[in-house]
Amino acid sequence: MSDKLFQQIRKFIDLSANDELVVNKYINTLQLNKKEFLLHDGKVCNDLYFVEKGCLRMYFINKKDSEQITQFALDGWWIADYMSFMNNTPSNYYIQSIEKTEIVSISSQKFDDLLKELPHLEKYFRIIMQKAVAASQHRAKLMYEMTKEEFYIHFSTSFPEFMQRVPQYMIASYLGLTPEYMSELRKKKL
Amino acid sequence: MSDKLFQQIRKFIDLSANDELVVNKYINTLQLNKKEFLLHDGKVCNDLYFVEKGCLRMYFINKKDSEQITQFALDGWWIADYMSFMNNTPSNYYIQSIEKTEIVSISSQKFDDLLKELPHLEKYFRIIMQKAVAASQHRAKLMYEMTKEEFYIHFSTSFPEFMQRVPQYMIASYLGLTPEYMSELRKKKL
Repeated sequence: MSDKLFQQIRKFIDLSANDELVVNKYINTLQLNKKEFLLHDGKVCNDLYFVEKGCLRMYFINKKDSEQITQFALDGWWIADYMSFMNNTPSNYYIQSIEKTEIVSISSQKFDDLLKELPHLEKYFRIIMQKAVAASQHRAKLMYEMTKEEFYIHFSTSFPEFMQRVPQYMIASYLGLTPEYMSELRKKKL
Repeated sequence: MSDKLFQQIRKFIDLSANDELVVNKYINTLQLNKKEFLLHDGKVCNDLYFVEKGCLRMYFINKKDSEQITQFALDGWWIADYMSFMNNTPSNYYIQSIEKTEIVSISSQKFDDLLKELPHLEKYFRIIMQKAVAASQHRAKLMYEMTKEEFYIHFSTSFPEFMQRVPQYMIASYLGLTPEYMSELRKKKL
């Protein structure tokens, strides 16, 4: 149930069979159906979530009362509202499964305890966070330099499998396009 | 010369006087005049930079041949092109001082060596990276939900000192406003 997580950790650090048992003491594994919520607006984001298999989305409700998606998390990705997680403050986000999804979660308290018991895991999480910073820098650059049409083409070329799995209206929300404009773009592309 | 860095590290972990000597073996300190470059488009971002005192900006040249600022770093902030730093690939960015700036830098190789010698520093860098992820999530949300005018007001209210220190045209570039539109906003605000 948490094979992918352990595989990923082993890419970056040594993890003994005993360490694995320790990690298992602190994490939870969860099977979500489609459209189940892990976080609601107004609640504290108490956990970090790792996607073993499936897909999550993170969104907030904008002033026009519609869902603005800010992030997706596919197999092997971590997701959380980090501000809420670190400061123990209410979140403005929702985190929800898009399809049947297997996740690993760890609460803020257990995350601290785990890192006290296995401090060499700090390196794994430092690298994961560093990669997340790199990804957000890259995304910000794309958003500054590309037109919406270019961003759509870049996105659909870079993540073809993702485009198949995720409903079009969610991709439109993430890219800041109206669903109408996106279906025009798709027709053009075909 | 690296007081602020040591102060910041001590907020999160214990750092002995001897650890401090070890850190000093790996870092460089640099005094920059205004408008000195730490990184050029086409070069690998070999170092992480910490601002002891002063201000750096990170930008790329967009298709209209103008400077698009994506980040600033003030006293106590780390900055780098993390994708280039981690993958050893050429950067598309420039990093430049805006005013007289004192920085601490550490190369990719020395960063690895330092963390091998003082593994308990992993925790400090994990927390710093986690905060950077939180900040980028927060910024992405603001950019999705605010009009440019609201973003300007939010920015100038949240960072009044920053608004005084940094040239207006740079703030305009960061906020994605034309300098003309920004001076209109400033007049309105006054």
